[in-house]
Amino acid sequence: MARIAVVAGDGIGPEVVAQARKVLDAVLPGVQATEYDLGAARWHRTGEVLPDSVLAELAGHDAILLGAVGDPTVPPGVLERGLLLKLRFAFDQYVNLRPSRLWPGVAGPLGNVKPGEVDLVVVREGTEGLYAGAGGSLHRDTPAEVATEESLNTRHGVERVIRDAFARAGRREQRKVTLVHKTNVLTHAGSLWARTFDAVAAEHPDVATEYQHVDAAAMFLVTQPQRYDVVVTDNLFGDILTDIAAAVTGGIGLAASGCINPEGAYPSMFEPVHGSAPDIAGQGVADPVAAVLSAALLLEQLGHAEAAARVNAAVAAELAGRAPGVALRTAEVGDRLAAHAVA
Amino acid sequence: MARIAVVAGDGIGPEVVAQARKVLDAVLPGVQATEYDLGAARWHRTGEVLPDSVLAELAGHDAILLGAVGDPTVPPGVLERGLLLKLRFAFDQYVNLRPSRLWPGVAGPLGNVKPGEVDLVVVREGTEGLYAGAGGSLHRDTPAEVATEESLNTRHGVERVIRDAFARAGRREQRKVTLVHKTNVLTHAGSLWARTFDAVAAEHPDVATEYQHVDAAAMFLVTQPQRYDVVVTDNLFGDILTDIAAAVTGGIGLAASGCINPEGAYPSMFEPVHGSAPDIAGQGVADPVAAVLSAALLLEQLGHAEAAARVNAAVAAELAGRAPGVALRTAEVGDRLAAHAVA
Ligand SMILES: CC(C)[C@H](C(=O)O)[C@@H](O)C(=O)O
Ligand SMILES: CC(C)[C@H](C(=O)O)[C@@H](O)C(=O)O
Repeated sequence: MARIAVVAGDGIGPEVVAQARKVLDAVLPGVQATEYDLGAARWHRTGEVLPDSVLAELAGHDAILLGAVGDPTVPPGVLERGLLLKLRFAFDQYVNLRPSRLWPGVAGPLGNVKPGEVDLVVVREGTEGLYAGAGGSLHRDTPAEVATEESLNTRHGVERVIRDAFARAGRREQRKVTLVHKTNVLTHAGSLWARTFDAVAAEHPDVATEYQHVDAAAMFLVTQPQRYDVVVTDNLFGDILTDIAAAVTGGIGLAASGCINPEGAYPSMFEPVHGSAPDIAGQGVADPVAAVLSAALLLEQLGHAEAAARVNAAVAAELAGRAPGVALRTAEVGDRLAAHAVA
Repeated sequence: MARIAVVAGDGIGPEVVAQARKVLDAVLPGVQATEYDLGAARWHRTGEVLPDSVLAELAGHDAILLGAVGDPTVPPGVLERGLLLKLRFAFDQYVNLRPSRLWPGVAGPLGNVKPGEVDLVVVREGTEGLYAGAGGSLHRDTPAEVATEESLNTRHGVERVIRDAFARAGRREQRKVTLVHKTNVLTHAGSLWARTFDAVAAEHPDVATEYQHVDAAAMFLVTQPQRYDVVVTDNLFGDILTDIAAAVTGGIGLAASGCINPEGAYPSMFEPVHGSAPDIAGQGVADPVAAVLSAALLLEQLGHAEAAARVNAAVAAELAGRAPGVALRTAEVGDRLAAHAVA
């Protein structure tokens, strides 16, 4: 039976994770969940971000379900570098998977895009690039200060994530992969990405390909999001593009993500794209759909495709049935989703 | 009398620049323009991108008006690094200015945003960051290949562009500056930007400030573009965010930009954000508004605020009067704009 580590975290994290667990319990009875207390609250209380002993325990699970961590009083980088990115890197979660659909019933911000027309997935590299932490500064707080950030890219890292994107595209209807980079300015990394992309593409004659600069892709995600199927890109570009994709498909309240180690050598991690939203925490009004869709990605990754499909169908029914302007209650949405998923 | 260097360039570049010149001639009779043949066509013919002698001649002008350079047959980076970025760096054009307005009469893609509600300007750093060209690769075309790109940031470079942003905000109605970076991941450069921003902000108590991570800003530009006034950000983030801002305000057919050396030690350069659009080149159907608005920025920079205002008013009238679905003719739009600007 699947062993899941649950990091509910801060703010609305525990509220939405509780719904994801309701749904998981419903579709996969007997799943074993262990809670881990990590995030801003623990850091404030103990000064600890991610003790080695906890990292070792997490490694023994099949997957991690994460709510959201952070609050405005924690200095930038502490939890991001110390917890979220630490887990992505330590568990070699090189596929950061971010699907975006404009679900029927959801009013997106784009006047000319109809529900059902957008169904894309961004395969964001998760262990390299500007997220490597290779930077520094000199002469801090003087007029002579310099600060650097270095993007590190390896053929190893680039090839494996591009292979994953092509494999995913091959299982989808449209079978198209768009590479997004900035080859005209970042010529070294861009060339590595483009050459690797072309080499992998040559092995997949059944998959259509295109290339776009990141600025053009950012624009087209707004003007023609329908054109995308699978998008593969580097860590930082993926961070930005997936927030645009979320925005045009109804907001980060609906955006799920998986930080995946496809080989299963380490646990994969599943989390809503949204943050801890301290402004609405504790009120029971956060939308748990992103957390529940993240749980569906978890199910899929662990081989429970049929259970995942039932969760997605429950979400589709929930969203299609939402009356505009009616305030939602987090726990009620969770109840409805769990009930629908097993109906 | 102002001496302008004109680089019409490739594709639709010459078509739209011709209209910008019509308008310039109308509002500033006697302006001296010298044409320079640079871009893909010259590179194909001669192998030259930007000879030193041409760079030296350009330096003797008050400003440069550029159409668009490039075509798909030129390898990525050749014209970008060799011409566009070369000029931005050689002429220390550290303020890359990109205003976005949703003009009355323009149907933007966002259902809930009305014309007139969006009026923002991105002050993008133009001489540092990942555009510095500090990168390399090893073991190319082997499984061991690594490629790096380095973002270089100096207190000097960051402070001067932030000062420019605050000065601009102080002259605007809303008086607000949003810093966009990714301080939670790019901790070294992010800290330099954030500390410098706070220091300059302290000198401008009359200007409101906020900070956003680049992924959040990308999202809010789609969901609430009305919230922005002046946005200041680094070179790469600015590249991406300005294309989103263009997309939500009617597309890059309307987006103007100035690469500005505020001290006037070197010429500033003005160019539409769009490219050479080879697919529609030669047909006389490209929208010259972005080029004409870039000419208005040029006028403003050279101290002809009143002439700039007349060009902007002509554009406002043109856009307000466009009937939906009616194909435009580049030269006719130019004629109308020139006539209106002096009426
Ligand atoms: C919190 C931050 C480190 C993270 C990222 O940049 O990857 C977040 O924005 C995300 O997209 O998951
Ligand atoms: C062509 C390219 C070098 C350029 C940039 O990245 O700055 C363009 O995208 C722009 O925004 O002016």
